[in-house]
Amino acid sequence: MGEVNMKKYWSSRIKNQQPYVFGEQPKDKKYIKLNTNENPYPPSPRVFEAIQASLEELRLYPDPACSELVSAISQLFGIGEKNIFCGNGSDEILAMAFPAFFEPGRPILFPDITYTFYPVYADFYGLDCRTVPVEADFTIPYKKLFNSPGGVVLANPNAPTGIALEPDMVESIIKNNPDNVVIVDEAYVDFGGRSAVSLIDRYPNLLVVRTTSKSYSLAGLRVGWAMGNENLIAALNVVKNSFNSYTLGRPAIAGGAAALRDRQYFKTCIDKVIKTRQETAKALKGLGFNITPSCTNFLFVSHEKAGAEHIFKRLREEGILVRYFKKPRIDNWLRITIGTEEDMKAVVKKLEEILRTV
Amino acid sequence: MGEVNMKKYWSSRIKNQQPYVFGEQPKDKKYIKLNTNENPYPPSPRVFEAIQASLEELRLYPDPACSELVSAISQLFGIGEKNIFCGNGSDEILAMAFPAFFEPGRPILFPDITYTFYPVYADFYGLDCRTVPVEADFTIPYKKLFNSPGGVVLANPNAPTGIALEPDMVESIIKNNPDNVVIVDEAYVDFGGRSAVSLIDRYPNLLVVRTTSKSYSLAGLRVGWAMGNENLIAALNVVKNSFNSYTLGRPAIAGGAAALRDRQYFKTCIDKVIKTRQETAKALKGLGFNITPSCTNFLFVSHEKAGAEHIFKRLREEGILVRYFKKPRIDNWLRITIGTEEDMKAVVKKLEEILRTV
Repeated sequence: MGEVNMKKYWSSRIKNQQPYVFGEQPKDKKYIKLNTNENPYPPSPRVFEAIQASLEELRLYPDPACSELVSAISQLFGIGEKNIFCGNGSDEILAMAFPAFFEPGRPILFPDITYTFYPVYADFYGLDCRTVPVEADFTIPYKKLFNSPGGVVLANPNAPTGIALEPDMVESIIKNNPDNVVIVDEAYVDFGGRSAVSLIDRYPNLLVVRTTSKSYSLAGLRVGWAMGNENLIAALNVVKNSFNSYTLGRPAIAGGAAALRDRQYFKTCIDKVIKTRQETAKALKGLGFNITPSCTNFLFVSHEKAGAEHIFKRLREEGILVRYFKKPRIDNWLRITIGTEEDMKAVVKKLEEILRTV
Repeated sequence: MGEVNMKKYWSSRIKNQQPYVFGEQPKDKKYIKLNTNENPYPPSPRVFEAIQASLEELRLYPDPACSELVSAISQLFGIGEKNIFCGNGSDEILAMAFPAFFEPGRPILFPDITYTFYPVYADFYGLDCRTVPVEADFTIPYKKLFNSPGGVVLANPNAPTGIALEPDMVESIIKNNPDNVVIVDEAYVDFGGRSAVSLIDRYPNLLVVRTTSKSYSLAGLRVGWAMGNENLIAALNVVKNSFNSYTLGRPAIAGGAAALRDRQYFKTCIDKVIKTRQETAKALKGLGFNITPSCTNFLFVSHEKAGAEHIFKRLREEGILVRYFKKPRIDNWLRITIGTEEDMKAVVKKLEEILRTV
């Protein structure tokens, strides 16, 4: 059957749609898995207890307002419950924010090197986007994000570069887009970035998006949230209730809330990841790698003598998965998630061996 | 602040969007909750064990292909894995199917009395719809769903009426829409309807949508799936990967699969609900209620002497929640979910008292 027939029933919206390509989730064997920025440590023990308790009423629909989770977020950040929106992972929140705030014909701005899901959302909803090239050192020329015709999406810290913008630069982007929404995607902020959340009272156009997938070790549970002016939150609720009223199940609401409440455990995990990142960066510099300054749970690295694709393939053969993006400007770079100290020692050792043979 | 300012940052897509209104999920006190068609029995004990085991790797992303769940569905229905798509509840699947298969300017047909989320999806994606009035007895004039300009959505059994179309009528709708997709939403089919799933091999335009929320007692977990020709499934995957690649968390995949595998438990629950439905229908007829022939886990009832809204309010005061839709044609009807035998005896008793005072 030819291409045309296979897509006979597809809408014109999706016939040419290029979907997002996620990092591989292999099932063939056990890898040291450093390709999708998961946390190497398990979630707080409180999460398991909370999920266990949530199963008692599994036959009943979950609370569509996710009140328990909203309450935990409200307490953690000292913001109102009306300023919070929960979603089935931060990707879902972004997927709802694009149609809520952006308009066809009014281009959205974001850096050329950033999370590759942003242009996919835009395409899906028929929105235009315009990319701003990052500098040679991958820093974002933030003034070029001022006065966007349609809105801004800013990953801060940025991925896959790991680089964070200073808070005053983020604020100036928000301030200089008074008529459009600025989404600040803070998926990695807990590992060393500085959050824009304290600005939501002053800027009605700011939406901060978070996830529990990285810093709370809950990638497998699917819990994200957004914080912003209540009029933005109301818009997200319109989209949600035009799509799926019950996006978070009972285990997700209870488990997410428990993770957010356990501050001691969170801090311990974050500190360990940051310490391992610093040690790994030092070791990789010793091997001659270039490394961007990371405020995240990954390192973005490049080597003059060995091609990134070659290293990627060799590591894979050795049972270590990292992320390689075959894309302009970054096709000689690798993104390596910070695993346990032991994981990273193994990576450094393998890289040393690989470099010896090039 | 006026209406205009509150919506300053809202896209034109959502400014006039009317979201879906779900049945209330009260937290103020304990009700006999018969308003959102939840199953009165807990899920299979196997579900709890499976969720427990799934928590071991909660720090890792879930399998985006939901292979374990797909495999359970494949075995249950004897269909290929490429014919299956999983979603975060069947609402999410519908929300992805509308943009996958329907086209602006080519109206989608569905009955005027049906699941009220259908027109909401259509509006959100800028799709047109045309409703076909059901007969006075709420049966669907199925021939009027032939030759749709853009596609058909058919809840079978229908909600909130509970009435099922015969399989040959469903097949003739599919056959008479060769150029458009027919979505058959079988959320309630396990309670006495007959599925169209055996037709997916013969009709490349048929998509059957299912949920674990009702017959598997898993409303709180959020697991649904679709079955159809692999080209339709491929289209749904394009939408999914343009929206959120990881829609089901680890507990949902494991718990959903375990529920589907436990056939004995499933059959026992279904039989109990059907038996209670029959007893309740008989008792309500004895009280003078009109009842549509239900193939679902609810009864759609009306009484000549007492208004539905009055009964709804009185029941609520007495701690019993049922569903009342203040909508044309059905504003003198109530949808009452089948609870336990005890729940239903309490409802019948209260209705008897209420009728005595009108």
